[in-house]
Amino acid sequence: MDAFAHVDAYWRAANYLSVGQIYLLGNPLLSEPLRPEDIKPRLLGHWGTTPGLNFCFAHLNRIITERDQDMIYIVGPGHGGPAAVAHAWLEGTYTEKYPHIRQDAEGMRRLFRQFSFPGGIPSHVAPEVPGSINEGGELGYSLAHAFGAAFDNPDLVVACVVGDGEAETGPLAASWHSNKFLNHARDGAVLPILHLNGYKIANPTILSRIPEEELVKLMEGYGYRPHVVAGDDPAAMHPLMAETLDRVFDEIAEYKEGRATRLPMIILRTPKGWTGPREVDGLQVEGTWRSHQVPLTGVRDNPEHLRALEEWMRSYRPGELFDADGRPVPEVLETVPAGPLRMSANPHANGGELLRPLALPDFRDHAVAVKSPATQLTEPTRVLGGLLRDVIAANPDDFRLMGPDETASNRLSAVFEVTDRAWDTRTLGTDENLGPDGRVMEVLSEHLCQGWLEGYLLTGRHGLFNCYEAFIHIVDSMFNQHAKWLESSQKIPWRRPVASLNYLLSSHVWRQDHNGFSHQDPGFLDVVMNKKSSVVRIYLPPDANTLLSVADHCLRSRDYVNLVVAGKQPVLDLFTMEEAVAHCTRGLGILEWASTDDGSEPDVVLACAGDVPTLETLAAAALLREHLPELRVRVINVVDLMRLQPESEHPHGMSDTEFDTLFTTDRPIIFNFHGYPLSIHRLTYRRNGHDNIHVRGYKEEGTTTTPFDMAMLNDIDRYHLVMDVIDRVPGLGATAAHLRQRMADERLRARAHTREYGEDPAGIRDWIWPY
Amino acid sequence: MDAFAHVDAYWRAANYLSVGQIYLLGNPLLSEPLRPEDIKPRLLGHWGTTPGLNFCFAHLNRIITERDQDMIYIVGPGHGGPAAVAHAWLEGTYTEKYPHIRQDAEGMRRLFRQFSFPGGIPSHVAPEVPGSINEGGELGYSLAHAFGAAFDNPDLVVACVVGDGEAETGPLAASWHSNKFLNHARDGAVLPILHLNGYKIANPTILSRIPEEELVKLMEGYGYRPHVVAGDDPAAMHPLMAETLDRVFDEIAEYKEGRATRLPMIILRTPKGWTGPREVDGLQVEGTWRSHQVPLTGVRDNPEHLRALEEWMRSYRPGELFDADGRPVPEVLETVPAGPLRMSANPHANGGELLRPLALPDFRDHAVAVKSPATQLTEPTRVLGGLLRDVIAANPDDFRLMGPDETASNRLSAVFEVTDRAWDTRTLGTDENLGPDGRVMEVLSEHLCQGWLEGYLLTGRHGLFNCYEAFIHIVDSMFNQHAKWLESSQKIPWRRPVASLNYLLSSHVWRQDHNGFSHQDPGFLDVVMNKKSSVVRIYLPPDANTLLSVADHCLRSRDYVNLVVAGKQPVLDLFTMEEAVAHCTRGLGILEWASTDDGSEPDVVLACAGDVPTLETLAAAALLREHLPELRVRVINVVDLMRLQPESEHPHGMSDTEFDTLFTTDRPIIFNFHGYPLSIHRLTYRRNGHDNIHVRGYKEEGTTTTPFDMAMLNDIDRYHLVMDVIDRVPGLGATAAHLRQRMADERLRARAHTREYGEDPAGIRDWIWPY
Repeated sequence: MDAFAHVDAYWRAANYLSVGQIYLLGNPLLSEPLRPEDIKPRLLGHWGTTPGLNFCFAHLNRIITERDQDMIYIVGPGHGGPAAVAHAWLEGTYTEKYPHIRQDAEGMRRLFRQFSFPGGIPSHVAPEVPGSINEGGELGYSLAHAFGAAFDNPDLVVACVVGDGEAETGPLAASWHSNKFLNHARDGAVLPILHLNGYKIANPTILSRIPEEELVKLMEGYGYRPHVVAGDDPAAMHPLMAETLDRVFDEIAEYKEGRATRLPMIILRTPKGWTGPREVDGLQVEGTWRSHQVPLTGVRDNPEHLRALEEWMRSYRPGELFDADGRPVPEVLETVPAGPLRMSANPHANGGELLRPLALPDFRDHAVAVKSPATQLTEPTRVLGGLLRDVIAANPDDFRLMGPDETASNRLSAVFEVTDRAWDTRTLGTDENLGPDGRVMEVLSEHLCQGWLEGYLLTGRHGLFNCYEAFIHIVDSMFNQHAKWLESSQKIPWRRPVASLNYLLSSHVWRQDHNGFSHQDPGFLDVVMNKKSSVVRIYLPPDANTLLSVADHCLRSRDYVNLVVAGKQPVLDLFTMEEAVAHCTRGLGILEWASTDDGSEPDVVLACAGDVPTLETLAAAALLREHLPELRVRVINVVDLMRLQPESEHPHGMSDTEFDTLFTTDRPIIFNFHGYPLSIHRLTYRRNGHDNIHVRGYKEEGTTTTPFDMAMLNDIDRYHLVMDVIDRVPGLGATAAHLRQRMADERLRARAHTREYGEDPAGIRDWIWPY
Repeated sequence: MDAFAHVDAYWRAANYLSVGQIYLLGNPLLSEPLRPEDIKPRLLGHWGTTPGLNFCFAHLNRIITERDQDMIYIVGPGHGGPAAVAHAWLEGTYTEKYPHIRQDAEGMRRLFRQFSFPGGIPSHVAPEVPGSINEGGELGYSLAHAFGAAFDNPDLVVACVVGDGEAETGPLAASWHSNKFLNHARDGAVLPILHLNGYKIANPTILSRIPEEELVKLMEGYGYRPHVVAGDDPAAMHPLMAETLDRVFDEIAEYKEGRATRLPMIILRTPKGWTGPREVDGLQVEGTWRSHQVPLTGVRDNPEHLRALEEWMRSYRPGELFDADGRPVPEVLETVPAGPLRMSANPHANGGELLRPLALPDFRDHAVAVKSPATQLTEPTRVLGGLLRDVIAANPDDFRLMGPDETASNRLSAVFEVTDRAWDTRTLGTDENLGPDGRVMEVLSEHLCQGWLEGYLLTGRHGLFNCYEAFIHIVDSMFNQHAKWLESSQKIPWRRPVASLNYLLSSHVWRQDHNGFSHQDPGFLDVVMNKKSSVVRIYLPPDANTLLSVADHCLRSRDYVNLVVAGKQPVLDLFTMEEAVAHCTRGLGILEWASTDDGSEPDVVLACAGDVPTLETLAAAALLREHLPELRVRVINVVDLMRLQPESEHPHGMSDTEFDTLFTTDRPIIFNFHGYPLSIHRLTYRRNGHDNIHVRGYKEEGTTTTPFDMAMLNDIDRYHLVMDVIDRVPGLGATAAHLRQRMADERLRARAHTREYGEDPAGIRDWIWPY
C-alpha cells in the first residue's frame, strides 16, 4: 500500500471533491462542522459510479507519468460527472479553462456550488468538462468513441471505462468487435475497462451476475485478453490494479509491436458507491443500487444524515489532501502528469486544437460535362466516388469513409482504387479491397459507423458516413446527442471547432426498387430539423455537379451536421459545373430553361427538392409546355432546404422579400418534395404565400415496385403534378379539363403497363427534357 | 443420406421455388427450354441467404413431425423472402391464405410472377408472408422478436435464424443475453441458429472470420451451448444437421425440465448462395458475396446466363419434385407437418388469432378525488402504477411491462406489489423484486425492450413499454418498422388485429432536473406523426385521471401504436374522473373554470398540451384574470394530439367547424406545447386560424436546472405567456404595458432567485389555482 500512497491520496482527493460537488454550497474544506445551510437545497448527481471512475483515473495517471504515455480517458458511465470535473480541477486544467474556479478554497467552493446548480454546469460528463469527448447521459457509445479516437493515432492509448449498465445496450455490445478494424501499427490502442459495480438504476446488471467463467469467455470471444481486478479493500486493490495495469500496458506494447494479436482489457469489480455510506437508515447502501444517485438524502433537514455526510467526507482525511488555502498538497499531485499529458488537458480530447484542414482536390475536376440541361443521365454518387477517392488519396491519415457495407452499393466504389476496407482479421483469396490500412470502414452496424466517426471527428479528424436513407433512423438518437454536443460546444470558448459530421444518404426512399417498404423512410430530415439551426444543414442536390459542389462545401465546414441526400441511380444532369456552384451558393433558384414565365409573374410555381421529385417536376413542366403553352410556369429547384426557413430561424434562411419574389405571394405553388410533405409546411408556414403551397411527397405508400410506380403510389408523378396544376390554377378552360382527364388516363395506362410487364413504360424510363 | 431423402427432396423443392420466384415469369415447371420471355425484366431478390434458410426449415419440419413440436420460424435474414414464400406454398398455407395461388402449375406461375413484381408481393419476409412475425429488411431484431414470442408460451420453440450480417448489429449483439430473462418453466425455448454464410452485401462478416474457438467462446460467454454444423456437401450436411437437431432438441427438453441451465444454439456454416451457380463469367459466385442478390444477371439478353439459369434450376431435378400438374409429390411433403403445426400456419405467427382481450380492472377505482381543479398535486404515473398493478394481477399470463430499468424511476413501483422483475440468473440477498416469474422486463437496452414487446404482441399478447422520453429515440427505427408492419397488416385480411404497442414516456423533457440537456428531447412525437394515421395515436394527458382514462383506452385498442407522454413529478389535478373521461373522449376541450370568456367570443385563446405547459398556461390565465380582468381568455387543453389535424388526415381529426368554434378564426392563439413548436404548426397549418397560432415549446435549450428555469429557458413559462398575450391582443392599453414590464421583471427575479438559492421561488414551486 505504501508504494501507492500517492495514488491513494489522489483517489481520496478526487472522491472528496466528488462528494463535495454533489452536496456542498459552502464550507468546502470542512473547516467547521457542517451546517444545514452548507448543503444544497436540491441534491443532484450520481455517486454510485464515481469512486470507481476516480480509482481508474488515479491509477492511469501513474502509468502516464511512468511511461510518458499519451492517453485520453473516456467515461462511459457519464453520469459520473463529478469524477471528471474533480480530475480536471486537481490537474489544474479546470482553472486554466475557467479562471474563476481557482485551485484554492474559494475555487473549491465555486466548483462545488456550480455542479448541477442553476447557471452552473451539467451533472454528467459533458462538453463543458475538459478532457472528455463522450457525454454519458445516453449510454452505449463510449467504446465506439474510443476506437474512433484511436484510429490513425498510433501513439495514443484510449482508456475507456464501460459501465456494466451501458454494457447491456446494443451499440456497446457490438462495439467490442471494433478490435477487428484496428491496425496495430497505424492506429492507437484501446484499453476497455469493464467496470462492474453490479447495478444499474434499480437493478443488478447482467454482466455482474453471470459466472465469471462465462464473462471471461465472452471477452475472449470478443477477441480480448481479459484481466480481472476485483475487491473492495483499497489496501488490496491498489497493488492489484497497479500490477494489472503494468501487465496490461506491457501487453499493449506487445500488441503495438505486432508480437500479440489481442488487446488486453480489464474487468474491474468494485462495489457501487465504494467508500460511500455503508448503510443509511438501516438499509445497505454501499454495494447496492441505492448508491446510484445521492446516497444520503434530506441532509438539510435530517441531522443524522448531515452527520453521516460529514463523517463520510472526513473519511477521506481532507486535512492531508489540501492545505489551509485549499490547494492540493504535493503528495496528491505526485502522479499528476504535466501539460498535455494530463488526460484532462490532452489535445486529442479537444480535437479542434489538432484539426488540420483537409487537402481538398478541386471538385470541378470531376464535373460532368453538361451541354444541355436534363438531356443526359449520370449516377451522382458514382461521380462523388471519384472526388472521395481523391480526397482519400490526398489525406491518407485523417479522413475516413464509414458505411454499413453500402459503399459499393451506394456506388462510391472509386474509392477502392486508392484504398481498402479496414479489416484486420482473417482474409481469403476471393476477398477484394480488404486490408489493415483501409480508409473505408464497413460494418453492418450504423451505430458503430456513427460512433467511430464521432470519436474520429471529436479528436480532430474528418469523415463522411454513407448510409441507406431509411436506416439512418437507427442512429437518430446518436445524431441527437452529437448535435447537442455541438450545440453546447459552440458556446464554450475553449472547445475549438471540429470537422462537421457529414451524412450522405443514398439508396433513398424513391429508389428502393428491390427492397420495398421497409427501406422507404425519409423521416431523418425531420429529426435533423428539430435540432438547433446553428448546427444543422440539409442539402438535396438534384444531380452530379450539384452534389460535387455540396460535398466540397460540407467537407470544408466546421461544427455542423451536414445531411446530404443524393441518388445513386442515374438522374438527369441539370447544371454545368459553373451553374451548379452558383445554384448551390444560392441554395435554390429558378430553372429558367424549364420555365415559361419569361421573367414575368408566373401563373403557377412548380418547386422541387430531391432528384426524383425534380425529374417528375421537369416532366410535368414539359407536359404543361406542350399542352398548355399559354400557361406561365416557373420551375424552382431547392438544394439547401434550410433556405426555406425565415432568416430569423436559420442562418441560411431567406428574407420574406426574397421568398416572395421567387415563390410569389398569390400564385399556386406545387412543391414536389423528397420527404414527408409536412416537412415543407413546417419550414414555410410563416411565409406570405404559404396558403398557396401544395406539397407532394412521400406519404408512406410503397412496396417492391418500379420507380415510376413508386412515384404514382405517392402522387409525386408528372401526371399527378399536371393534374394538381390544373386543379389549382383558375380559369384554364376546356383544354385543361381535357388534359386533366388525359393525365388520369396516362396514370392508369402506366400502372397497367407496369403490372403487365414488370417495368416502367419506355417513354417514362428514359425520359429527358424534350426541348 | 437415404435416411434424409425426404428432407433433401423438400429442400430441393424449396430451392427450386426460390429461384423460380427471382427469375421466372412463365414456364414454371421448365416443361420446355427457358426462353428470354420467360424471364422477368427486372431481376430482384436475394438468393445468397435463401438455400441456408431452406435447409433449416426442411430439417426443422422433420423435428416437428417426429416430436409433435409446436414451433415457429423467425427469419433474421429477411431478405430471403423467396424462402419463406416457398415454404408457405409447399405447406399449402399460401393457397389457404391466397386462394388464387393454387398448389399447381398455374399457381406456381403466379407465385413466381408476383414476387418482387409490381402489384405483387415484397421481396422480403413481410407481413404478407404467412408464418412470419419478423420483417428482415432492417436487420437486428430477429432474436429479440424470438424471445418475445417465447415468453409465456411454455410449449413453443422459436427457431430463429440469425444472419451473420445481422449479427454485427448492436441490437442483435445485445439480444443474446435475453436468455437471462427466460424462465424455463413458464416460457418457451428459443433456438438460435447463427447462420454463417460468410458475407454481407460486399464484405465478409466478422463472425465468419474470427477463429472458431473464439466464436464458440463468444456463444458460451453469452450463456449458450453451441453446436457447430459446417460444410457444403449436402450428403454430409443432411445427417450432420439431423443429428445435431436431435441432440439440440434433447437439450431443449433438458432445459425445459430444469435439468440444464443453458439453451443450445447452432452455428451453421454453409456457403453463401449454396447450390447456386459456382462461377459466372469466370468469377466465383457460390461461396462469395457475389451471390448476395441475383447471381446470374442480364439473363434475358445473355444466352449463356439463360443456359446457366436453366441448368441451375434443373439441378434440383424438378421432375422428381412436382407432378405434371405442378403439385408437390408426396415424397416432398413427407416431412411437412399438419394443420397448425406447419410453421407457415402456426397461429403464434398470426397472433391476433390467439389474442384474448385483457381482463381490465375498472380504471375509475384508481381515480384521484378532485374537489376543485388545480388545487392539489398528484404524481400521475404513480397512480397509473396502481392500475398497472391490477392489470398484471388480473392477467398473469399475457401482459408484460417493459422498461430500460426505469419502472421505479418512472414511479410505477406499485407493480412490484404483485410481481417481480424477470430475472433468471444469480440473485443476492440484497436484491429486491427479482424473480424468474416477473412480469416486468428491465434491461438497459431500449432495443431489447422494444424487440421483446414486438415479439410478444405479434404472438397475441399485451404490453406496455415505459421509457424516458429522450431515449425512446433509440428505437425510432424499430418503431418505424413496427408501424410499417401494422400499416401493411391492416390491409391483409387474414392478419388478425393484435394488441397495440403502447409507449408510456415519462421522465420527460421538462423534468430532467438532474440529468440535463442529454435527456431533453421530445422529438419522438414527430417521428410518430410521420407514420400512417391508420396506425398512430398520440396522447398527452395533463393529470392523473386523464392518464388513467387514456391508459384504459390504449390497453383495449388494436393494431395501433399509442404514444402516451405523462409526467412522474407531481402535477395539478385538473379533472374529476368523470370529467377526465369526458375530456379524453373529446380529446380536447375548454377548461371553463380557467377561462374568462363566459361562453362568448374570447379575446385570446390559451391552448396547451402536456402537463408542464398546462401548469404554466393555467398560471398565466390566473395572472391575466388578476391583472387584466376585462380580458376574455379561453383556456383549451389538448389530450389527443391528432384531434388537431383535419378529419381528412387522421381518423381522430376535427372538422374545420369544430376547430374554428373552439379556437376561433381571428383571435390570437398562444399554444403552449410539450414538444417542438413546429409539431403544432405541421398539424394545424390548414386551419383557418393558423396564422394566429403562436406556439411555445421546447426550443432545444436546457441543462441541469430547476423546472421553472427550464420553462423560462424555452419561453413556455407563465410570465412569458402573459407577455405573448399582451403582444398579440390589440388595444390593451397602459395597464397591459405595465403588466408586461412586470412579467419581464418577474422572470429576471425568478432567474436570480434560482441562481442564488438553487431552487425555484416558493410561490412558483407550490403554485395552485388561486380562485
